[in-house]
Amino acid sequence: MSQGKRVVLASRPVGEPKASDFRIEEFAVPTLGQGELLLRTIWLSLDPYMRGRMSDAASYAAPVPVGGVMEGETVCEVIASNNPEFATGEIVRSRLGWLTHAISNGERLIKVDSKLAPISTSIGVLGMPGMTAYTGLLDIGKPQPGETVVVAAASGAVGSAVGQIAKIKGAHAIGIAGGKDKCDYVRNELGFDACIDHRDPDFAAKLKAACPKGIDVYFENVGGAVFEAVFPLLNPFARVPVCGLIAHYNDTEAKPPKWAASMMRAILTKRLTFRGFIVSDFAARHGDFLHDMSTWVREGKIKYKEFVTEGLENAPTAFMGLLKGANFGKQLVRVGPDKA
Amino acid sequence: MSQGKRVVLASRPVGEPKASDFRIEEFAVPTLGQGELLLRTIWLSLDPYMRGRMSDAASYAAPVPVGGVMEGETVCEVIASNNPEFATGEIVRSRLGWLTHAISNGERLIKVDSKLAPISTSIGVLGMPGMTAYTGLLDIGKPQPGETVVVAAASGAVGSAVGQIAKIKGAHAIGIAGGKDKCDYVRNELGFDACIDHRDPDFAAKLKAACPKGIDVYFENVGGAVFEAVFPLLNPFARVPVCGLIAHYNDTEAKPPKWAASMMRAILTKRLTFRGFIVSDFAARHGDFLHDMSTWVREGKIKYKEFVTEGLENAPTAFMGLLKGANFGKQLVRVGPDKA
Repeated sequence: MSQGKRVVLASRPVGEPKASDFRIEEFAVPTLGQGELLLRTIWLSLDPYMRGRMSDAASYAAPVPVGGVMEGETVCEVIASNNPEFATGEIVRSRLGWLTHAISNGERLIKVDSKLAPISTSIGVLGMPGMTAYTGLLDIGKPQPGETVVVAAASGAVGSAVGQIAKIKGAHAIGIAGGKDKCDYVRNELGFDACIDHRDPDFAAKLKAACPKGIDVYFENVGGAVFEAVFPLLNPFARVPVCGLIAHYNDTEAKPPKWAASMMRAILTKRLTFRGFIVSDFAARHGDFLHDMSTWVREGKIKYKEFVTEGLENAPTAFMGLLKGANFGKQLVRVGPDKA
Repeated sequence: MSQGKRVVLASRPVGEPKASDFRIEEFAVPTLGQGELLLRTIWLSLDPYMRGRMSDAASYAAPVPVGGVMEGETVCEVIASNNPEFATGEIVRSRLGWLTHAISNGERLIKVDSKLAPISTSIGVLGMPGMTAYTGLLDIGKPQPGETVVVAAASGAVGSAVGQIAKIKGAHAIGIAGGKDKCDYVRNELGFDACIDHRDPDFAAKLKAACPKGIDVYFENVGGAVFEAVFPLLNPFARVPVCGLIAHYNDTEAKPPKWAASMMRAILTKRLTFRGFIVSDFAARHGDFLHDMSTWVREGKIKYKEFVTEGLENAPTAFMGLLKGANFGKQLVRVGPDKA
């Protein structure tokens, strides 16, 4: 039997994950049983939520056990099959985790049509990150024509889609990103109305200047200093879909934010809405999402950028970089070639 | 011309309002002009939001100017009229403020049918407080059968309606009130499933015990220690209509609440919804409210209690008491007799 590789959680990180919190293991790929199929990973998606899975703090999902394979979405090829529903050579999307090979009984595999779009998009703009942007923005944020939508990590998988969908809906899109290259890309390539560099010492003032009519929708995926700058700019009746808090994922101690003492008062007097969500809460919207988003991608209204790290063994380094914004576009790991 | 009495804001309170922040003035009631009518106040409603109007901190409504008449809803009788739309003897609801007489041109007066219900209910259970409860609970809280709804100030105008409507909708209603008499009333007369005394040293533990399946809807009208006890009990997908924060209205300094550092994380991981509202945001629901609520009152499904202070000159004392929970039921001021 052949050997596979996998990345397991070696220890729970305290603060920033370190290389030693991960361990790369080889394993013997088991033989196929009745009804099973063998999958070979082509793409692995790395996403900020994985930091939560490394921790045993209470959350909406169980943590990865120490010694367990890191979780994640993958695009795979079926390379052997005892299952009549899957043929060798078919491409599927699945949640196999950080590994090169896996056995599946066929449950929770979703076939990917490689003729419609590059298969990597099924875990990117047409997958979980794209749907997170679509549902959070449209079902909670509900941007109206002429309103102002602000989103951070604007060159990333979720943020880039949020701003572009906001534009499609007739709103102004103001991005926030780290560094000139990302900001230029967000403005010039993605067509946001503005993009502010959060590393700029005058960040808060520049964000305010970019939002002369205040902020109607803030798609929250970072927290920290960005939220502190956004909060006083929120308009009456503003909506804040709370999707992620990447600035805090490595916090070892929770600190009250600057606005903590006045947050409830502002919610009351400005009639704000804060609502947390996970993409799976909107599973019923998957058909709408796939229809709209694939149309927009085909029409060139939604662009996306992929940031590829080669080799499963480099996944830990890529993930540690992702938490610091080292990626520029959707972070993917190329685990194997398109065709074996 | 006859003399009227009015209560004006003498100075902006720092912390708790004091008697010297109010001033009682006499004034000459002006003569009627073309199209005008003269109103005599029968009932004045006192409500917690008035503390906000005494302050010049930014809010959803302009403050009462120093020297200006305190704002408030009133039930009045037309005692003279040069306006063909209003006849002498008719009863109207209006926002005249804390005074005995006023001239009106007829705008924003709403006629009250004294045969349908006691006229005081038009500023109570069938008026603004009732509609605040109805819209906040049903349009934001959206209680489902079997869910748990918690509300504080449960013997008051808003809280009592919130819990009784929750029961009508098949939810469990857990009230919070100050002292044994109020708690007994909420449980025994209003039919809440439980009512916890917030003055009890074991308040937080008793609230937890009364909510064995957690809290699905918390109708926030107080803040402070009640919210601190409620927060960890919120279930995934809980909704928090933010209606008022009476525990903080006299704060001279905003302090971050105990849960401040983890609030955003909880919103995210539990997918909570916090949404502030003002009753006027739901003006389009007035017809539904009036239909449902008057039916429920007639059928005995919604009970209400009035707490009457006699005489306009006692309104400041009654209002200062209201902020400390000295009232037991909807706080009204009897300004004049039903029939002059």
